[in-house]
Amino acid sequence: MTALPTGKVICAGLGPGDPELMSVKSWRALQSARHVAYFRKAGRAGQARAIVDGLLAEGVTEYPMEYPVTTEIHFSDPEYNRQLAAFYDQWADTLTEIARQDTVVVLCEGDPFLYGSFMHLHTRLAGRATVEIIPGITGMSGCWTATGQPITWGDDVLTVAMATLSEAELTKRIAETDALVVMKIGRNLPKLRRALAAAGRADDAWLVERGTMPAQTVQKLCDVTGEVPYFSIVLLHGTGRRP
Amino acid sequence: MTALPTGKVICAGLGPGDPELMSVKSWRALQSARHVAYFRKAGRAGQARAIVDGLLAEGVTEYPMEYPVTTEIHFSDPEYNRQLAAFYDQWADTLTEIARQDTVVVLCEGDPFLYGSFMHLHTRLAGRATVEIIPGITGMSGCWTATGQPITWGDDVLTVAMATLSEAELTKRIAETDALVVMKIGRNLPKLRRALAAAGRADDAWLVERGTMPAQTVQKLCDVTGEVPYFSIVLLHGTGRRP
Ligand SMILES: C[S@@+](CC[C@H](N)C(=O)[O-])C[C@H]1O[C@@H](n2cnc3c(N)ncnc32)[C@H](O)[C@@H]1O
Ligand SMILES: C[S@@+](CC[C@H](N)C(=O)[O-])C[C@H]1O[C@@H](n2cnc3c(N)ncnc32)[C@H](O)[C@@H]1O
Repeated sequence: MTALPTGKVICAGLGPGDPELMSVKSWRALQSARHVAYFRKAGRAGQARAIVDGLLAEGVTEYPMEYPVTTEIHFSDPEYNRQLAAFYDQWADTLTEIARQDTVVVLCEGDPFLYGSFMHLHTRLAGRATVEIIPGITGMSGCWTATGQPITWGDDVLTVAMATLSEAELTKRIAETDALVVMKIGRNLPKLRRALAAAGRADDAWLVERGTMPAQTVQKLCDVTGEVPYFSIVLLHGTGRRP
Repeated sequence: MTALPTGKVICAGLGPGDPELMSVKSWRALQSARHVAYFRKAGRAGQARAIVDGLLAEGVTEYPMEYPVTTEIHFSDPEYNRQLAAFYDQWADTLTEIARQDTVVVLCEGDPFLYGSFMHLHTRLAGRATVEIIPGITGMSGCWTATGQPITWGDDVLTVAMATLSEAELTKRIAETDALVVMKIGRNLPKLRRALAAAGRADDAWLVERGTMPAQTVQKLCDVTGEVPYFSIVLLHGTGRRP
């Protein structure tokens, strides 16, 4: 008997932050869910959980999946990899266990398959549980909408990159693209600023913090001083062909 | 008196095709709308209109905005530009007129600010009507989710490009990126295939036709023969860092 069990794992994309930007499909999955899992930093409420506040059914069982490490160890350190791998292995086992009898909904900010943490569980669940992914509005869509300007026109090229890339790599990417989205800013902001300046585009860059969330801010990057929160995106708008 | 009128223009992102992938916010905007406008090719039903079938209120007034030209004239011909500009000018006037007294919802596939037609109305409505944009799940999110594999991992770079670019430009973009999304395939498919081959990535490419719609297909591009529909996306998945 190799039949998969009756339950399943649904990964529900929740969109950029505003609960109203969740899809009808994710909304429905949530409201009938009896098991809900979500990633969070130890000791924090967790953004995915915050989005669904007030939307879960009575008596739901919650499974906060707390990262063993986030930025305390650099991701190039083998120990970072080892701890995270063990964490994902363990949660894949637990979700497989629940899915033997019931459906469990895993909450995911934005769109699950775009740089999402669930992807590491997805790989590990293959062949063990039925998995369904519900796409979501990405954080970047929420952010460029917040700037009030379209991100791409005509045949503009859009580059999506992480600020964790090297300064040289970022500079090259910025110089060669029409439109740009940079995520995972945090302590990489000074490096990203230098790359934007080297590519001659520092004055065109926007910073959106907490796009579509109650504390959203939208600013020209050159007007920003100080640190930025985890939910921050830097954007350059394309300027392509338009009738 | 320069106050803006009481009505407004809401551009509702509808997501990739499956009506359940619409946001709760767009869903609500639609259900209370008394005026609904949407783009379509002359003589066609229109994909945006198809998504909302059965969701509009009784007695709603519909405004099909029929493109004067799509691919009959090449976009480099000044006549193409002239006809489209006149078309957008006229509809911007009409929407401004409606928004003087009431709210009109403009339907938009995917996310309005990502290569969307509404952007050309948005520019023309500035200062004349209150405009609200509701982001949507992009066609590309619907398509990569349909492949069952994440599009980007770790610090993968994602490039989004149009198949209307030159073969040389496409080849360079493909060679230099980790993950790729190509839209507007149509008659550019042979050129795109040559570019993928030149960049050494023809065997990794996926083609998703009508992602999340009832007639969705997901295939390796090398297994595809013949023409592809307008709603087609070619993808290369990133293979970056993963614990
Ligand atoms: C690990 S990635 C996850 C992306 C997510 N799966 C998505 O589709 O948006 C996390 C990064 O997304 C960006 N991000 C996501 N949502 C955001 C929002 N609402 N406002 C600003 N940045 C956001 C930030 O740059 C953050 O560092
Ligand atoms: C003018 S662009 C509009 C993109 C749209 N605003 C979005 O966010 O997806 C049209 C292109 O999007 C792609 N597309 C959009 N939705 C799609 C879907 N469901 N399946 C396949 N391709 C899609 C096709 O490549 C098509 O040529």
